[in-house]
Formats: sequence, C-alpha cells, structure tokens
Amino acid sequence: MKFLRQAWYAAAWAEDLQASLVGRTILGERVVLFRKPNGTPAAIGGVCPHRFAPLERGRLEGDAVSCPYHGLTFSCTGQCVRNPHGDGRIPKNARVPSYPLLEKDTVVWIWMGDPAKADPAKVPDFPLLNDTVNYTRTAGQLLNMSLRWDLMLDNLLDLSHAGFLHLANLGSEAFSRGKMDVERHGTRLQVNNLYPNGLPAPVFVGTGACRPDVYVDYWVNVRWDPPGFMYFDAGITPTGHDRSEGVQLNSVQLLTPESATSTHYFWRLFRSYRLSDSGLTAGIEQMVSQAFRTEDEPMVAAVQNNMAGRELMDLQPVMLSLDGGAVRARRIIEELIRQEDEHMAPVAA
Amino acid sequence: MKFLRQAWYAAAWAEDLQASLVGRTILGERVVLFRKPNGTPAAIGGVCPHRFAPLERGRLEGDAVSCPYHGLTFSCTGQCVRNPHGDGRIPKNARVPSYPLLEKDTVVWIWMGDPAKADPAKVPDFPLLNDTVNYTRTAGQLLNMSLRWDLMLDNLLDLSHAGFLHLANLGSEAFSRGKMDVERHGTRLQVNNLYPNGLPAPVFVGTGACRPDVYVDYWVNVRWDPPGFMYFDAGITPTGHDRSEGVQLNSVQLLTPESATSTHYFWRLFRSYRLSDSGLTAGIEQMVSQAFRTEDEPMVAAVQNNMAGRELMDLQPVMLSLDGGAVRARRIIEELIRQEDEHMAPVAA
Amino acid sequence: MKFLRQAWYAAAWAEDLQASLVGRTILGERVVLFRKPNGTPAAIGGVCPHRFAPLERGRLEGDAVSCPYHGLTFSCTGQCVRNPHGDGRIPKNARVPSYPLLEKDTVVWIWMGDPAKADPAKVPDFPLLNDTVNYTRTAGQLLNMSLRWDLMLDNLLDLSHAGFLHLANLGSEAFSRGKMDVERHGTRLQVNNLYPNGLPAPVFVGTGACRPDVYVDYWVNVRWDPPGFMYFDAGITPTGHDRSEGVQLNSVQLLTPESATSTHYFWRLFRSYRLSDSGLTAGIEQMVSQAFRTEDEPMVAAVQNNMAGRELMDLQPVMLSLDGGAVRARRIIEELIRQEDEHMAPVAA
Repeated sequence: MKFLRQAWYAAAWAEDLQASLVGRTILGERVVLFRKPNGTPAAIGGVCPHRFAPLERGRLEGDAVSCPYHGLTFSCTGQCVRNPHGDGRIPKNARVPSYPLLEKDTVVWIWMGDPAKADPAKVPDFPLLNDTVNYTRTAGQLLNMSLRWDLMLDNLLDLSHAGFLHLANLGSEAFSRGKMDVERHGTRLQVNNLYPNGLPAPVFVGTGACRPDVYVDYWVNVRWDPPGFMYFDAGITPTGHDRSEGVQLNSVQLLTPESATSTHYFWRLFRSYRLSDSGLTAGIEQMVSQAFRTEDEPMVAAVQNNMAGRELMDLQPVMLSLDGGAVRARRIIEELIRQEDEHMAPVAA
Repeated sequence: MKFLRQAWYAAAWAEDLQASLVGRTILGERVVLFRKPNGTPAAIGGVCPHRFAPLERGRLEGDAVSCPYHGLTFSCTGQCVRNPHGDGRIPKNARVPSYPLLEKDTVVWIWMGDPAKADPAKVPDFPLLNDTVNYTRTAGQLLNMSLRWDLMLDNLLDLSHAGFLHLANLGSEAFSRGKMDVERHGTRLQVNNLYPNGLPAPVFVGTGACRPDVYVDYWVNVRWDPPGFMYFDAGITPTGHDRSEGVQLNSVQLLTPESATSTHYFWRLFRSYRLSDSGLTAGIEQMVSQAFRTEDEPMVAAVQNNMAGRELMDLQPVMLSLDGGAVRARRIIEELIRQEDEHMAPVAA
Repeated sequence: MKFLRQAWYAAAWAEDLQASLVGRTILGERVVLFRKPNGTPAAIGGVCPHRFAPLERGRLEGDAVSCPYHGLTFSCTGQCVRNPHGDGRIPKNARVPSYPLLEKDTVVWIWMGDPAKADPAKVPDFPLLNDTVNYTRTAGQLLNMSLRWDLMLDNLLDLSHAGFLHLANLGSEAFSRGKMDVERHGTRLQVNNLYPNGLPAPVFVGTGACRPDVYVDYWVNVRWDPPGFMYFDAGITPTGHDRSEGVQLNSVQLLTPESATSTHYFWRLFRSYRLSDSGLTAGIEQMVSQAFRTEDEPMVAAVQNNMAGRELMDLQPVMLSLDGGAVRARRIIEELIRQEDEHMAPVAA
C-alpha cells in the first residue's frame, strides 16, 4: 500500500501529549512525540541511529531525548547533542529525522513529507469543536486497530451499514430508506446523508435526546479531507421540522495509517444537548467505543481476512449506490499519490 | 498443495446442520451451509461479492441468506435477490457460487468441482452405520486440526503407530507383530490389519468388551476412498475364534482439507456390545478424542514442523512395510489430480 | 544469517544432561542429547528419517534412541539398529547424523561441522570455574531467547550499556567514565573495561561484597572466543587498591545460535566472597536473571524489531568507541566463515 506522504496526519490528541515521551508508528515510521518545556509539541525519529534502540523508552531532558541503551542524546531538531562515551565526539551521521508539528482544534498534526512543504493552511479545521458554550465534547479517543486504513475509510464514508450492523446503537430502520448526496470541492468531499421520518437510533434515545416513539429526520453530513480526516455534522429533528429545532451529536473522526495493515483511529464526539451531564459524556464514549470495537472492528477484520492481502479494486467488487463517497475518496487519494510520484520523478534529459 | 476438486467432501454431520448458518472453509473456499425450510441442506459461497463480508454472520431468511454488513440477500442458488439500497437494482455480478449437497448415512457431503459433474453415486456409503438395532453409535465428532490433511491420512492408513503412540488406549503390544494386507479395487483401497493373539487394547478392556487377561485376535480392516474417506471394520475375538464370536468397535473417519495446512477431521464410532449403555457411549467419545488430541495431533504437528513446508516425497523418506497403504493412497490421489488437470487443459490447435 | 560450522558450540550444562533425552535445535539443526550408560554424553540428529518424528519424545534404550511414532531405533552412532516392522530389514538410508561431543569445565560442547575436523584443543577453557575452594558458583543457567545471536553478542561485548540499562543492578554511574581496551590474540579477543573510582553497582552492595558508600575501581575483563563464548573476570576493589584486595564476581557467558532468530544463552557466575552462603547463590541467580530477562531481552528485542530483518552493517549504524570489541568480533567471525567457504569451494580445473 502506498501512502500519501506530503500531508498532515493526526498524531495525537493535544491532551494526551504532556511532559513524557510517546512512541508511535505513523505510515510505518517510528516517531517519538513530546512537549518541549515551553509547551510546544515536537516529534523526532523514534529509532537511535547507533544501535536502533527505541528512543521512546529513553528520557526527556529539556527539549532533548536520550537513548535508553547507550545514552546518545538528540535535540528536538533531531541532531545528536551528546555522546557520553570515549572522547565525547559526535559522529557526523548521528542524527534522526525531525517532523513539523501543528496543534489545532485539540489535535496534534504531524507532517510526514518534505518539511519545506509543510503548509499549516492545509490542516483541516473543526470550528464547532472549540465552541464549549454550545457543545460538550467527549475526551479524545484513540483506538489502535489491526486493520488496513482504507477499509476503515470505506466503512466511515458509507453510513448505510449502520442500518444493518449498528441497529442496537447508531443506526435505525430508517437507514434503509436513506438518501446520499456526494459533492466534490477541490480535493474535499461532502457526503450528505438523510434518513427521513424514522424512529430515532438508540444512541439518541439512550442519551435523552428524544423519546423512543417520536418520528425524526436524521441527518449525517460528512466532510472528508484526504487522506482520512472527517467532520461529522449529525443530528435529529422532529420529522419535517427545521434542523435548528433538533439536537446535534457531531464528531471528528480521523484515520492515520500506522502501517500497511494497522490504523490509528482518533475520534471525539460533541453534542448540543444536556451539556452539563458529565455522566452522559462518559456514557456516550462507552456506547460509541463499544459499537466500533465489537461491531465495526470484527466486521472489517473479517473483510480484510477474506480479501487475503489483495487490493479492493483488483477484486472487482460489486458496486452499490452506497459506495459513492468511498469510491470517490479513493480516486482523489490515487490522484494525489500520482501527483506526488510525478513531482518525485527525475527530469528527463 | 493441490486438491482433488471434482470430488465429494464431508462438509458436516447431518445432526449439526439445522436452521442456522454454519460457516466453513473447504479446500480453501469459504462456504456457508444451512437447511432450507423444507429440510434439505444447501451451501453457497460464504463471501459477499460487494465488500467481502462473511455471510455466515448474516441472517437466514427462508432459503436465502442476507449479508450482515449491507444487507444484500442471496438465494440458495447463489443469486442476489435483494438490494436494499438506492433504486434496489441488482447488479449483474451480484452472485456467489452454490454447491451441490447430498445427505447420506448421517453425513452431509459437498461437491467442490463443476456442479454438472456431481454424481451422487460417487459418495461412499457406510451401511452398518445405519443399523441402529445391532450397533450403538457415538455422536458425530469434528476436530479442526492445524495439520496438513495428507499427513493425517498417512497417520490413519498406518495403524502400526498405535503400538507405539497409543499403548494407553487404542493399541497393544501385539501391534508389533501385525500383518498388513493392501488391495486396490479401482480407486478404492482395502487395507486389512491383523494383530493376532495379543492382550487386548485398553479401549476394549475399559469399555467392558473383554477382560484384560484374555488373549485376542484384533482386526482393523480399513476401506479407503479418495481423497480421505475411511470406513473402519475393527474388533476383537478370542484368539483363534471366528470374528462372529467377537465384538466390533467400528468407525467412520473422514478427512476434509480446510486449507493447505488445516483439516476437518470427522469421526464417529459404532459398537456391537453394551448397546444401551449411554454413559459408555460418552466415555468412548472422550477416550478416543483424547487419543487424537493429545497423542496424534501433537505428533503429526511435530512431523509437519520438522518437514518445514516441504512435500513428503521430496524429503526422500525411509520407506517401511507399514507405509504400504498410505503410499498407494497418495499415488491414487496423484493419478486423479493428473486426470483432472488433463481434462482442464486447453485443446491443442 | 550464516553460521560458523566448523566449530564447537555449548550444547548443555553437564549437570543438565542425565539419563534422559534432551531435544535441542543448534544452528537450525534438530539434535537429541543424552548420556550413555557409561556416563559419556552423546548426540544424534533429532529427526527420524522415516516420518520426521521428533526423536527426543522417544525412549533412551541403553545407548540407543527409539522413535516415538513407529519405533525405529538408532544407536549413538546414528545408525538404525532395529526396525520392529515386517521382516525387520533395516533400509540402507535409515540413519541420522551423529555429533562429536566433549565435556569440559561443566559444559557439554558439540561440534557442528565435519566430524573429522573436531579438535578438542579448540574448546575454550574456564580454569577458575573448577576452583571450588576459592570460588562458589551458581547453577548453570540457560535462557532461550527469541533474539538473533549476533545482537546478543554485541550486547555482551559492550558493557557501557550497563551504565544506562542496568543502573538498578549491574551498572553504576561510573560506567560513563569507563575505559575500554581491546586486544586481539589470534582469533581471540581480550576486551578489558575499567570503571575507576565510582560508587559500587547494586549487585555488589546487595550481595554483601561492600558498603554502598565506598568508592571502588570496578573491572570487567572479557575474554572472547569465536563465535560466541566469553569468560568474564570481573570485580571491585577500593579505589586505588590492588585487585587482590578486592572481590570477584566472575562468569562464563556462552551464546549458541538456535536458529537465525533465536539463541541459547548459557551463563554461570562464580564469586570469591561469602562462599558458604547458599541463599546468596540463589539470590545472585535471580538478580542477574532478572536483569537479562527484563532489561536486556526487551531492549535487544526492540532493536531487532527496528532492524526489520536487515543486517547490522547494511544499516550503516553510527559507530561509537564502545563498539570496538563487538565490531572486531564480527570481523573475526566473518573471516572465519570466509575461510570455511573457501575450503568448501570446488577446486578449479
């Protein structure tokens, strides 16, 4: 699997990055994340170039990281700044990569490509997430899944599966009458879903958003940015009423490939109702986490197993209308990777 | 490993196939088995052609199966009969294979080759198994083993190993004086073993078939049909007496390859003595299952591990007289596979 | 990974080889070790040439081994001496390899190359290990580690890591001021380390060798013989005093490759103080074993994982002064393997 490299990726929730080392694999590269004494986040390569020891087991010393095996110390620029052995001379090649980081909307983003090309304007924003007056948000969640990230993306850009797989929590019988509308804006997709006039999904009833017997219009509008970053504007309103009369249960859902076969799945919900009920916040985290862990993860794992390492399109899958968003997203990613390859290609003589 | 494809394979015990979906891998193909409302068994491919979800986690609706991920529904012929999405149109390639099935002598058989060639006359029969007046049978047993099926076949066609590996249950010291006689009839082998005038194997003593100090002739006549289906006519009689004066502990032993490295091992015993003792029936199941699980399985696993993925004949094994049955069976299977390949070969211009 | 084949390897501690079969893989070859009735150790191939069953699960009968699967019996020369089947004729190719063995200084050594070249003079000796008047030794220890043996060798020939990884037991802050001196004598290396005027490592304080607040000179002189056999002369003496006024905590550390990715790590310590305190002997075993298991093993496992199957030198590691011993040892091993290859090469016409 090829990854888009000239791109920002979600690396951590801001709240999970404190004054200690966090080791993480992103696009197959081992990195170590930390905060400098001044509070800004930093990331350098996670493998010592001397004997390939894991730097995240070492120590954070100011804004430098010392190796747990032989004590070589690397600054946040990746340069070795201390060799405690022999004459203390620092070998020329004693350095690790460093990565541009950016903290925004509770997410720490990492740039995995050429540092000179790291453009902060390319990070997607999640404005309502910062509106803590009208919304209450869950803690930032991170599930590490032994699943290909593209199959997880297919899963999240197709909500119709909730009408079969998640009837006990996120979906409802109305999903089988859903309407999906996909629009492309540059490299961004807007995938709008409407499930009109159905009984509400259990997640709304169970969180006190509405009564179980009221009929509602349920909308889930998904904004996607490549390669795997989504903003869900979702909610219910009594059938036929304006959305402003309803409630929202929005979310941010971010897929960062760990390796060719595993994924970091970051997610955080924020709601517009019962704002001060902190028990409810924890309940939402648990209910949604359980749907992801006990319904999505085993299903996508079975799919991945049945695919036996082959690429989706090589298997010539039957195409349904529900695949519209996921298929277009795959095409945009392919375009972007092709563009990267062309930029990398040597100029002909 | 190449499999014989134009052949019937044991897929399930009839009693284990009821009104629910059973997922099983046979010759590396994922199938889902079930009974139609009229009671006849059916099998279709187990992987949805849309997103490769496992159909056995779906629902049985009449004689159709609906996918657990997005609800595509397939009839017992393999044709998609319902698409609950969008305009409901059913894409042309929305179908899965279906497999001929046949229920006989308590076994459900599946045909893994060209359906047009599925000849019911080719299923081996086990007549005495249906004689519930003179015999009492155990439940149908199924052990799933992470072992190559050909090594299991070698094991079952050579009984001499019971004189070393199974002295605590199925074998006796008399096995070291055994006589083996192999006859071929078409593609069938008859491997007759006689262990004359020895102390009885513990399995007979422990099940009240005889006293421990009586000397007996022990016979095990194995009828083999390719690729892995055996009928054991086995028993003991006081030394020199006619077999009609003895007791029988017969069995059916069926090996169906799950994959290149794993096997479905179906077995069922039926005895001619102490017919109404149901505790004894359970005791036999437990004793034999333990011999297979704690003696055969670890031994064949060690053999397989030592072979490191290489084929038996490529390793130029030392040949002993006891290998006569197994070696001939291997040759017959090779012949049949070669015949299949020739039938498949394109006609020269 | 290529192994040196014309060499002696530690196969077992003498005390662990008694009148029963010990199966072990050495350089990827399966062997079975035992003692003959006269007490001398013997080793033959561990895989029966009939059906590749594991001989170590069989029985020792005098100085012969019988196979657990079908009873073929092999003498300590590797020749099959009994076939209990059919006419009892012994097939020509019914034999397994046999290996020269040598018992010396509490170690049983095995020769993995051409038996004609097995020269007893090539086994390294450990003279002080046999001085049971002035030293008390621990039991022979064997750790089986899923680690490449060359990475374990790098670890043992560089003691500086103890100043970072083993500060709680074997190392001290003085290690960061260490001096290393490497000398080559033929194919042997002498790697002498001195850590002058530091607080003693916890292992000395914890075993009553000295008080925690006394300053000591700590020496560790390592004699290495290829491919992986080390004799550690180690101890402490009050700063500036003669070593004869100090205490020794010596050891033998022997690395035998099990396979390309796993290692038999044999070690035994012997001390010059508190000789009759048997509780202390057990305490040393436990303390050192814990350092190896919970500090070295996870670190080298992480290194191996980060190397992803590539060879150390292919990764162009940063070189530090502390690598002097390990790098020279690697070169000597390469030289010896190259010499073996040249001897094997066919003579040009």
